[in-house]
Amino acid sequence: MATNLYDYAYELEKALRNSSEFQNLKSMYDAVENDAVAKSMFDAFRNVQMQLQQKQMEGRDITEDEVMEAQEIANRVQGNEKVTRLMEAEQRMSMAINELNKIIMKPLDELYGSMNG
Amino acid sequence: MATNLYDYAYELEKALRNSSEFQNLKSMYDAVENDAVAKSMFDAFRNVQMQLQQKQMEGRDITEDEVMEAQEIANRVQGNEKVTRLMEAEQRMSMAINELNKIIMKPLDELYGSMNG
Repeated sequence: MATNLYDYAYELEKALRNSSEFQNLKSMYDAVENDAVAKSMFDAFRNVQMQLQQKQMEGRDITEDEVMEAQEIANRVQGNEKVTRLMEAEQRMSMAINELNKIIMKPLDELYGSMNG
Repeated sequence: MATNLYDYAYELEKALRNSSEFQNLKSMYDAVENDAVAKSMFDAFRNVQMQLQQKQMEGRDITEDEVMEAQEIANRVQGNEKVTRLMEAEQRMSMAINELNKIIMKPLDELYGSMNG
């Protein structure tokens, strides 16, 4: 790989690290990290989410009990401002990352798109 | 998002488009595209690969017939220099993309890594 390809990636990494999206995400993370109640809620929510995703990917059925557990945790989470703000910050960061990926991957999208056509 | 975050992504996109990995991939693609035999082999190989991946993701069993079909196509593909060169070019491009992603996503890896710790 030409050295400058990496150099451009490092520049983008720096810009991402300094972006309002990342800085905001970081403070929301810290706020949750330093609050035992919010932290345990957030971890529980993330764990249930990951378990269900895993089962879905493996084609296994999700039981009614599991849906109810996930719903119950989601409801509790919505009552905690620190956790909801963190989740909003994650959402915004994730949208920015998607935009970046779309821009960077355009050459490949074009190439593969023309192949399929 | 700060405007310059996008600007850095556009710069990287340009560098990727001009990289030897992408330029090489593009010529190998064109070579296959302009060779009916190579093209149909490549398409067949890609289709079988995608079908098997799809089944795997859905947790469905892959039959012995399917394994044999995939093996048979893979063997044929290996005898076609244009297709093997394209596959090598894809491999190199994919490794470069992985490197780029690792660099760009470092701030998020660090943040989530510290959360899990």
